[in-house]
Amino acid sequence: MLTRASTHTDFHLSSGLGIVELSIALDEIFDADKNKILFDVGHQRYPFLMLQEKRKGGQLQFPETNDYDMFCYPGFAGLAAASALGYAIAYPKNKVIAVIGDGALSCGETYEALNCIGELQANILIILNQNGMSITKNVGALSDGKTVELFAKSLRLDYKGICDGHDIDGLIKVLRQLKHQKGPLVLHVQTVKGRGYCWAEKNPTKFHMSFYPFDPETGLYEPNQDAVKRLFIEAMNKLETKGISYIEEYHDVYFTFPAMPTINRIQEAYPKNVLDTGISEQCCMTLSTTLAGLNKRVIMLIGAVFLTRCYSQLYDLCHQKSPLTVILNLTGVTHYGSTHQAVYTVGLLRPIPHATILYPVNLIEFEQMLDFAFRFNQPVFLQIPKENISMKNTVLSYGKGVLLKKGDRITILVIGGMFHIAFYLAGRYDEVEIVNPRFLKPFDYELLKKSIKKTGRLLIIEEGFRKGGLGEEILSFLKETSITCKTKLIAAADIFVSCHHYNEVCDEYGLTVSACEKAIQTLLRKTVQLSGLIEEKKEKRA
Amino acid sequence: MLTRASTHTDFHLSSGLGIVELSIALDEIFDADKNKILFDVGHQRYPFLMLQEKRKGGQLQFPETNDYDMFCYPGFAGLAAASALGYAIAYPKNKVIAVIGDGALSCGETYEALNCIGELQANILIILNQNGMSITKNVGALSDGKTVELFAKSLRLDYKGICDGHDIDGLIKVLRQLKHQKGPLVLHVQTVKGRGYCWAEKNPTKFHMSFYPFDPETGLYEPNQDAVKRLFIEAMNKLETKGISYIEEYHDVYFTFPAMPTINRIQEAYPKNVLDTGISEQCCMTLSTTLAGLNKRVIMLIGAVFLTRCYSQLYDLCHQKSPLTVILNLTGVTHYGSTHQAVYTVGLLRPIPHATILYPVNLIEFEQMLDFAFRFNQPVFLQIPKENISMKNTVLSYGKGVLLKKGDRITILVIGGMFHIAFYLAGRYDEVEIVNPRFLKPFDYELLKKSIKKTGRLLIIEEGFRKGGLGEEILSFLKETSITCKTKLIAAADIFVSCHHYNEVCDEYGLTVSACEKAIQTLLRKTVQLSGLIEEKKEKRA
Repeated sequence: MLTRASTHTDFHLSSGLGIVELSIALDEIFDADKNKILFDVGHQRYPFLMLQEKRKGGQLQFPETNDYDMFCYPGFAGLAAASALGYAIAYPKNKVIAVIGDGALSCGETYEALNCIGELQANILIILNQNGMSITKNVGALSDGKTVELFAKSLRLDYKGICDGHDIDGLIKVLRQLKHQKGPLVLHVQTVKGRGYCWAEKNPTKFHMSFYPFDPETGLYEPNQDAVKRLFIEAMNKLETKGISYIEEYHDVYFTFPAMPTINRIQEAYPKNVLDTGISEQCCMTLSTTLAGLNKRVIMLIGAVFLTRCYSQLYDLCHQKSPLTVILNLTGVTHYGSTHQAVYTVGLLRPIPHATILYPVNLIEFEQMLDFAFRFNQPVFLQIPKENISMKNTVLSYGKGVLLKKGDRITILVIGGMFHIAFYLAGRYDEVEIVNPRFLKPFDYELLKKSIKKTGRLLIIEEGFRKGGLGEEILSFLKETSITCKTKLIAAADIFVSCHHYNEVCDEYGLTVSACEKAIQTLLRKTVQLSGLIEEKKEKRA
Repeated sequence: MLTRASTHTDFHLSSGLGIVELSIALDEIFDADKNKILFDVGHQRYPFLMLQEKRKGGQLQFPETNDYDMFCYPGFAGLAAASALGYAIAYPKNKVIAVIGDGALSCGETYEALNCIGELQANILIILNQNGMSITKNVGALSDGKTVELFAKSLRLDYKGICDGHDIDGLIKVLRQLKHQKGPLVLHVQTVKGRGYCWAEKNPTKFHMSFYPFDPETGLYEPNQDAVKRLFIEAMNKLETKGISYIEEYHDVYFTFPAMPTINRIQEAYPKNVLDTGISEQCCMTLSTTLAGLNKRVIMLIGAVFLTRCYSQLYDLCHQKSPLTVILNLTGVTHYGSTHQAVYTVGLLRPIPHATILYPVNLIEFEQMLDFAFRFNQPVFLQIPKENISMKNTVLSYGKGVLLKKGDRITILVIGGMFHIAFYLAGRYDEVEIVNPRFLKPFDYELLKKSIKKTGRLLIIEEGFRKGGLGEEILSFLKETSITCKTKLIAAADIFVSCHHYNEVCDEYGLTVSACEKAIQTLLRKTVQLSGLIEEKKEKRA
């Protein structure tokens, strides 16, 4: 049923499959109304949700309300133990259960919480679902599971293990024993990620997140993946080719990441040049910062949604001006639900001194920017393109943007992956001029001023929060310098979205073609009093 | 010598005193040119720096370049282990030494790095300086040190201990043994924080950060502490009084914090209502979010500079709309050096949906806001006042600001603790109107519009980065709505400062009285073409 669900949408398949028997046993022994059962991360809880629905008289079916793989709290790894401690303090008489695993044990927050749970001797059953995997193969001294007992005891947590996580009867027996035991205990369960689906068992990383559409019979992804995914795959290919040439030229080149399954080719050819720290963004960022500061060339890969997990370390990176290249995946609007929108990316990076932020509109620019970043002597944040806009090939210059199309009555500046809207509008309104800023920091104010001096109107389309975004900076600059032009900023609203399909998310944020078109019409139509006066004045002079 | 240094400035005294003998032994055995020695956190390394200066032919004196307690990298706890791993990868032949302690062991990042160090068997000597303290008394299952050996071994780190950290000869002997041992090893050293200075030994929390001025003979703080510190102490007093009344009225009230030494009175009277998680901001934020979401009333205290250490968790808090009150200490410009400027606070919180941000201009407003936050059904970030502006006592209304002074030609909006500048200017320019926004989010646009409709000019003084700050939002709003007024935004420049005295930091950021006065003069003098036209037009109509 899970596999079937995953043929409808991108889906965290392997994790769910590995935890079916454990979910059945938990459902059998614990009353979910009395005993809070937390799953770290949210995508581990689908099988349990399905059983809960059935228990309430429903059918054993995929939870409709979750619309397949919309993440739910906790959306990120490492939060369940701390949250369980909150429940245990609030309801000291009830047993709280935290199912952690899938690499959450490598997260610092998990450890911080276990350290507190051990001291407070909180009544929490921690089920460690050991499957040897995070997103990639799990790393870290604890990852083979052999020293988990020592680890638990060092934190004053009782330990029971290792149980076979696919033996339902055995699990039920153990859970029944533990049900009334007081105090903190780690139950160590061994499972196989992707269990029961041969292709996922063979390649759990590939099916950690299965990409729709794929053929469940053969486990092969079908070629008609959507454009953003295809582009991502191509960008990774380019990164790998470039990366191998960098290593061959400079030797001391490192690729670091907190569990990203994307650069297998480099990993196979040059395993010593690749450092996967597991799901531990803080450690990965500090380690990469230090290495880059020691004259090593370092490229770090991280999902933009996970930048918030090492924000303090980002400040340290920029404070030290270490020449680290940070490649950001999944920026802006995503189709991964409310917990995984990276619409804060630009607003988050922009206020950090010494940060250089790049956004490429196609694969060629991505390669140019990669070369630039690799050679630049300060930290660079380079986003993976989400569009492949065709444009004249030009040299990349520091802090310089380019025009993608000329026009004379309205300037459209796009920030992020919304160039398709600009080109759609340019098709309808010939007077549109399109600016590709390339550098989101430092921003090319000269190019923009030149353009709006000509057009007198500016529409900014920003695939990110309005609050804190680059659009606000630009409008505030125009306001303060009294540059006379009519402006409109279309950017993401100040909300958490409630959906996950890309178009629906854009709708909720207000990032739509129709909003942009309406803005253009208003800007073109309204000759407001103010600009009217100015124009009159100009005409008189001329 | 350290104690003497601390009589000149605010200074991390206790930590340095505890580590003198260890620093001497390290200096004796290791060549700091070959062997990188990292101290977690920066303030632990003063004694070692002094010895290094002497070794280079200088005198044994407090390092001039550091100008007493200007923080240096790593500024925050928990980074040394990950950084050491970076060094060990870059220089695999040299021994790297990381001195951790002072509560850094409770930080998730320390654990993340140790987990990686253990797997990679990196050649790192980790010296755990166990003194039973972080900033407050250390907490967590590991804090008594008895299970550190188990912990180290679970992470595949060799273990040696416990050594007396004040026995120089013993330390030298052990370090000599370990000098040529390969692979990762934890040397467990026991010290007394504040060693050798009786008042610091008696009260290591008080002297973790000693506040200038104090009398070294009596260990008593002198009454002429600066105004911000006095205000902080008074605010904490009010918080404690309020807090006790909340607990007495509602019982289920919790005060949570990651190692803040500030609410002893509540802790003594109601120890069960106080949760100190140690230096582990992530765990503290998730735990507090969960508790607040379960109908408990929770007030969390945290230094604003540490918000970056739990930024992902802040998003979770607001995503879940848990009614947590977060009290922020040390916002905006501080006198703690380049690593401890919280000029990002507003820019960091503002883009998070559902966040309410409050800034009180005096202690009365602080109390009003505390009551508001305590009863509000969403997350509130309340800053501790840095000024005590006298103003008419008025009711606090959600999302509403107030005028502090009326004027007719220029509106000054202050964001953060810069009202003293506004009042100074009002003393010189009678036409100044001063707006106290109270709520930085949601911001009172009605009040502002009304004021600038009258004055036609707006000066914003923001004690925070211009990039991402509230000033940018306001100017962009004015630009887009074509509200005609001349504007100027004085806010912190996009730099890391290189100093730590409050006034010098303000100078570097450009947050000065003279910059504001110049802005006023420009705004008042220049009747620019644009507003000139509008004014002409108005006059004609009138």
